[in-house]
Amino acid sequence: MNFHVLTLFPEMIESGFHTSITGRALENGTIALDTINIRDYSANKHMRVDDYPYGGGAGMVMQAEPVHRAYKELCEKYIGRSFRVIYLTPQGSVFTQSMAEELAREEDLVFLCGHYEGIDERALELIVTDYISIGDYVLTGGELPALVMMDAIARLVPQVLNNKESAQFDSFHDNLLEYPQYTRPEEYMGMRVPEILLSGHHAKIEEWRRQQSLRRTRERRPDLLQNNPYLTEKDKRYLQDT
Amino acid sequence: MNFHVLTLFPEMIESGFHTSITGRALENGTIALDTINIRDYSANKHMRVDDYPYGGGAGMVMQAEPVHRAYKELCEKYIGRSFRVIYLTPQGSVFTQSMAEELAREEDLVFLCGHYEGIDERALELIVTDYISIGDYVLTGGELPALVMMDAIARLVPQVLNNKESAQFDSFHDNLLEYPQYTRPEEYMGMRVPEILLSGHHAKIEEWRRQQSLRRTRERRPDLLQNNPYLTEKDKRYLQDT
Repeated sequence: MNFHVLTLFPEMIESGFHTSITGRALENGTIALDTINIRDYSANKHMRVDDYPYGGGAGMVMQAEPVHRAYKELCEKYIGRSFRVIYLTPQGSVFTQSMAEELAREEDLVFLCGHYEGIDERALELIVTDYISIGDYVLTGGELPALVMMDAIARLVPQVLNNKESAQFDSFHDNLLEYPQYTRPEEYMGMRVPEILLSGHHAKIEEWRRQQSLRRTRERRPDLLQNNPYLTEKDKRYLQDT
Repeated sequence: MNFHVLTLFPEMIESGFHTSITGRALENGTIALDTINIRDYSANKHMRVDDYPYGGGAGMVMQAEPVHRAYKELCEKYIGRSFRVIYLTPQGSVFTQSMAEELAREEDLVFLCGHYEGIDERALELIVTDYISIGDYVLTGGELPALVMMDAIARLVPQVLNNKESAQFDSFHDNLLEYPQYTRPEEYMGMRVPEILLSGHHAKIEEWRRQQSLRRTRERRPDLLQNNPYLTEKDKRYLQDT
């Protein structure tokens, strides 16, 4: 997987992605990261990349030309490759785990990060294929959302997670929230690990965990239970009886 | 606003927050950031902070004691202050702009970042007040979600944004998506700025922008139009007629 990021703050992308699990994936070559500073493509001698919005209003708007030129150079560098270009914006479709799974199958992904009041609409029309929002809140720029998406996608790329970090039983497995986890010691501050987890009885442990997932999903995210195709008859009985 | 972050990767929080607008707010003292490395509170001579989950399964679980001890020391340092402790987890309520507005009124916020398969449930029961998810996707740790929340909250703190960056006319103003923005030049790659924006007629520009917001919301996020209390009669007529 090759990530290409067009941004005014390449150091933020680099330092955010070079940590922990994604940092290890960069080092062993499972993932490649290429950051392109949009400011390098300014046509202005002061390296300006923004200007006042036409029609008035607060804030500055990033100009079309530096963004478009940065993207064109990327295309020239990788002749023959076609790119999906993701613009991080609150005006996009809301990112989900299934979108992460779909995007993880691409060979290359380009992320375009806006700042200030956004980017001139014409640059977006020229290069963007996907408008994506990571949630219904406003941030100071597109860099953190790009890092969030790259993290969610990277961990689904084969060989990025090791056995200890398996993605198989994640939250959202079967569209349910995850059960509570416990590790040593058996007792902490007078609170004991649930006995069932010490029993060694795997089938009963699985059943307890499933029930905990169902209860927790009902308490915190009842929306996830509606029309959930992964619920078994046994799950439904459990939810009815408790 | 004082942010306190309990994490295994303090450098990721520091470098992520020291950039651009939030970096400026740290420098001028509008925001304070205090990162606490959970590993420093390990009781283990190898500074281990995780162990295998009781009941089996892939992944490692962060132990209760280092997390709890790190939090207790934070409380001792600031005697008399009460803290909301936010645990970043897919098992939480989904973060929204109105939650950001509410949290921006707090004096202190503590963010607890998990890693691996999460944190021993007993530590969470002891210290966490709010379980929050930034969206329905799985990440490698809680650091990026903490940065996302801190960014969304920080920009709402008075004096963090300057006049040029006003938060008043953001996306989600009136629960609608933002209208398209344009800046110089008037023509780029044969694409002209919409004439209305060059007219200088402020009332007509406002009307055009409102219509663009309505159209864009209908196309991309029709869910935001349902039961939207900010829609005027004029807005509703426009949506019906187009």
